Amino acid sequence: MPNVYAVIMAGGAGTRFWPRSREKSPKQLLEIVGKGTMIQNTVQRISDLIEPKNILIVTNKIQKPSLEKQFLNIPNENIIVEPLGRNTAPCIGLAGLFVRRIDPDAVMVVLPADHIMHDEEEFRRVLRLAIWVAYESGKLITIGIQPTRPETGYGYIQVIDEDDGTNPYFERGIYKVKTFAEKPNLTTAKQFLDSGDFLWNSGMFVWRVNTIMQEIEQHLPDMYQELLKIDDVIGSDKYTNVLETTYRIIRGISIDYGVMEKAKEVYVIKGNFGWSDVGSWDEVYRISGRDDNGNSVTGQAFLHDTKNTLVYGGDKFISTIGVEDLIIIATDDAVLVCKQGRSQDVKEIVDYLRRKQKNDYL
Amino acid sequence: MPNVYAVIMAGGAGTRFWPRSREKSPKQLLEIVGKGTMIQNTVQRISDLIEPKNILIVTNKIQKPSLEKQFLNIPNENIIVEPLGRNTAPCIGLAGLFVRRIDPDAVMVVLPADHIMHDEEEFRRVLRLAIWVAYESGKLITIGIQPTRPETGYGYIQVIDEDDGTNPYFERGIYKVKTFAEKPNLTTAKQFLDSGDFLWNSGMFVWRVNTIMQEIEQHLPDMYQELLKIDDVIGSDKYTNVLETTYRIIRGISIDYGVMEKAKEVYVIKGNFGWSDVGSWDEVYRISGRDDNGNSVTGQAFLHDTKNTLVYGGDKFISTIGVEDLIIIATDDAVLVCKQGRSQDVKEIVDYLRRKQKNDYL
Repeated sequence: MPNVYAVIMAGGAGTRFWPRSREKSPKQLLEIVGKGTMIQNTVQRISDLIEPKNILIVTNKIQKPSLEKQFLNIPNENIIVEPLGRNTAPCIGLAGLFVRRIDPDAVMVVLPADHIMHDEEEFRRVLRLAIWVAYESGKLITIGIQPTRPETGYGYIQVIDEDDGTNPYFERGIYKVKTFAEKPNLTTAKQFLDSGDFLWNSGMFVWRVNTIMQEIEQHLPDMYQELLKIDDVIGSDKYTNVLETTYRIIRGISIDYGVMEKAKEVYVIKGNFGWSDVGSWDEVYRISGRDDNGNSVTGQAFLHDTKNTLVYGGDKFISTIGVEDLIIIATDDAVLVCKQGRSQDVKEIVDYLRRKQKNDYL
Repeated sequence: MPNVYAVIMAGGAGTRFWPRSREKSPKQLLEIVGKGTMIQNTVQRISDLIEPKNILIVTNKIQKPSLEKQFLNIPNENIIVEPLGRNTAPCIGLAGLFVRRIDPDAVMVVLPADHIMHDEEEFRRVLRLAIWVAYESGKLITIGIQPTRPETGYGYIQVIDEDDGTNPYFERGIYKVKTFAEKPNLTTAKQFLDSGDFLWNSGMFVWRVNTIMQEIEQHLPDMYQELLKIDDVIGSDKYTNVLETTYRIIRGISIDYGVMEKAKEVYVIKGNFGWSDVGSWDEVYRISGRDDNGNSVTGQAFLHDTKNTLVYGGDKFISTIGVEDLIIIATDDAVLVCKQGRSQDVKEIVDYLRRKQKNDYL
């Protein structure tokens, strides 16, 4: 078996979970669903497969201290700080530099810090398979999720679901990617769902580190040159300065758009483990347990004649009368009352707070 | 002109304004509408007519310290404490004892602590007239409000609106009461409004103190006997004990039901000064200023695609998305989200909190 490293991407600002998520406490550092912070759950979920010293977390300055405290068994030097967020391609490239120096043939598992999976055993089975195929084939592997609804909030991956004789892994439920598709509108999402050959793009990737670094070199050569400048100074006292200079000019682009869509051969492993990227309060409501009235309550509350409402009160007592289809979130200093289905507009609030420089609430 | 005393009834527990009103901070001690607490506004409103030393406030133990602080110019001994709330008749009788000892011919103006009036000048004009008639006639005077809608939350007073020759004050807009009516259902309320001879019962009264004490003696003789026991010990060290013993057995009955409905001759002065008893959050919304979207906001808030919503946030930042017809009230430890028109059910919340002994939230 190869050396396996996990790279957990934890740089998100988490504006979609205002008022709970703030600059200092983004989504991955919160208990949004169930027990434990989302990133704790992410680490816990892979702990049978990947030992702590092989887990790297890429984050930002603000979150680093909290992460060091949350993960005492992960070496501090494994928590890599980006000077600013530049989307996933630079993040993965930067982490790749560190892994490649240790073992260029190592398999690198890239995971967002803030996803949930209901069937963690099945997730690990899929991950083991992905690690094996990534190592054996030397190809880019992504994990695609069997869709269960015409979701417009995710990107999609169309797969070649017939055995054309060029895919040695077909029998094991591993497909070649036909195309990547951006977030669709509802009509298109319904067509994707009906077609049967579209999967949700989960943003989880598995590959040998030298494979992805070569792909970055090929498809994002300018970025690769910048990454090499960083590579030259890793471990020296020039590192921080060079990192900052590089990040100022490096292109902010996603690994999907920058590499995956352009790469010649990408495999996708179909996963069916109750996955969610928990991208909004609406999604939290969707995956939460509910009572007979369709209400989902965290904290102390009294809901009178109330239906289909998500309530998170922290240490506040929440009470409702005669309402339905609401999302009610209270924190120490702020309250959100949002119609179900409208939680994508939470970003409007964050925009407003930025515009008005109400930094206490950001 | 007679000596004039005001008796302000400030004993209410104010459960209807949860989560703002609490046992320690009932409605009259809050800024519900505009500036200043409701009781401060009540005192301010009559300050041109009645000097502070002639203002008595009847309240309970919990509220007394706060009232002493709010009214430094009112002598502490004018703040009369009832051991427990027994409705308005004992409250008025108790205050009447104090006024009668000073001047049995004094005119006593009885005012709830938590009403608002938009046209305060007109209110004072009506009050001056009431004082004059009360003194001259020696009758019971009540202030009735010209109804503007078929309100089911108020009691009504039917007046004799034709001059039958027995009413010397008819020309001055002062009527004899025909009947008192309890809170009607909507159909009846509409009939009352259409009939033109029904006024809202405001709960404000004006009379000579010896007049009301004689009426209490006549219609509530048992209560009067209890009041006399208290009268005997006013100023002595037995007072507190006798008061407590008396209040334990005294009948809890309203002055309307116990006296006004039974009295032979009651005059009512018609008032038209934008009165409200501010009995619910719905009423607060009704009388509040609103923006173009029908929203009324106190505190910091960002309302996105939101209509006809009342927001009170205290020092919390409130944000809404895609909602309408709501009442949203946040305090340090609790949040209420209530559909417009349903705020009478706030009492259900208070009942729940009592049942569950969640005293911190009461």
